[in-house]
Amino acid sequence: MLLYNKGLLIVISGPSGAGKGTVCKALLKKDENLKLSISMTTRKPRNGEVDGENYFFTTVEKFKMLIENNMLLEWAKVYDNYYGTPKEFVQRNIDEGHDVILEIDIQGALKVKDKYPEGVFVFILPPSMEELKNRIKKRGTETEEEILKRFKSAYEEINFVSRYNYVVINDDVDLAVDKILAIIKAEKCRVDRNKGLYLEIKERC
Amino acid sequence: MLLYNKGLLIVISGPSGAGKGTVCKALLKKDENLKLSISMTTRKPRNGEVDGENYFFTTVEKFKMLIENNMLLEWAKVYDNYYGTPKEFVQRNIDEGHDVILEIDIQGALKVKDKYPEGVFVFILPPSMEELKNRIKKRGTETEEEILKRFKSAYEEINFVSRYNYVVINDDVDLAVDKILAIIKAEKCRVDRNKGLYLEIKERC
Repeated sequence: MLLYNKGLLIVISGPSGAGKGTVCKALLKKDENLKLSISMTTRKPRNGEVDGENYFFTTVEKFKMLIENNMLLEWAKVYDNYYGTPKEFVQRNIDEGHDVILEIDIQGALKVKDKYPEGVFVFILPPSMEELKNRIKKRGTETEEEILKRFKSAYEEINFVSRYNYVVINDDVDLAVDKILAIIKAEKCRVDRNKGLYLEIKERC
Repeated sequence: MLLYNKGLLIVISGPSGAGKGTVCKALLKKDENLKLSISMTTRKPRNGEVDGENYFFTTVEKFKMLIENNMLLEWAKVYDNYYGTPKEFVQRNIDEGHDVILEIDIQGALKVKDKYPEGVFVFILPPSMEELKNRIKKRGTETEEEILKRFKSAYEEINFVSRYNYVVINDDVDLAVDKILAIIKAEKCRVDRNKGLYLEIKERC
């Protein structure tokens, strides 16, 4: 194949309650070439969690070493634990021709964009703010105050859509997945991802 | 639907021999929402040609009036005849939600880009320059000298790929069509085509 034959980093992001997780699960089911990016954390594994599957588990010392050596696409400290996206796992899969899906909140996605601007940044939106409220409520694990806080935060976060490449409304998971698969296919045809291509074609002359 | 609900202008272009025509025919067969842009000309209709189907036939006087009033996306004079792309037909179909396919040579496409930069510009490439030569030869209507001239021109024209948004290799028509349909779907999700969207979502709150 002459066309762009490496994989892409597809960042699936959006406010909490937009359904990023559901969309990613459905995506991975539909396209076998996709790999899910695995986060690294310093927190202890919970019952049943497998290293290299749910997370890469590591020590604080090693995590700090990765930060210092610029080996994370993004990281954050949540309470006493570090969480981050190891660059090496993403890059290796991309080099092998796999598209890598990274499901991440908006703050994280914007950090990734600084380090990996050639990624494809997809913002998942709920069909309406009312539906977003319903979805946050349905989780049922939060108090009324927490729900309101989450909703307000989601409301503010929607302004960041302008920093993304694509916006997909998650009113129907199958339709959203179709759109993201089309985005992946189209991105590989973008002229700026195929700069060496026409030279190669001419050389074959 | 909240997302971008107008059509797009899809400009299918590339060197002669790349197979633009075959790709466009297959595209139109596969997607009923597509409309083919119809050129306007001052030449006389040939036997069996229908006005508004093969071409919009018009007079030199009217054609010049369209030029003066900036009502053509591009135009050219070939020998004694004028040919051009009427803006109104394209815009009306786009407003109605149809995607409009414009099959055009590279010079024409670049003129369209000046007047309609929000179009989607797809460059069709042959699998190799050798294959391009074969395709030009197969037409069988040209002398050896003409074939060489066409081939050299195609060779030069490939440099213009950098002015396009997408590049699609026409080694397999079905695959090329799939890619263009993905490009259309993806383009409608681009954030810069959906600027009013998140405001609308917030208003529905």
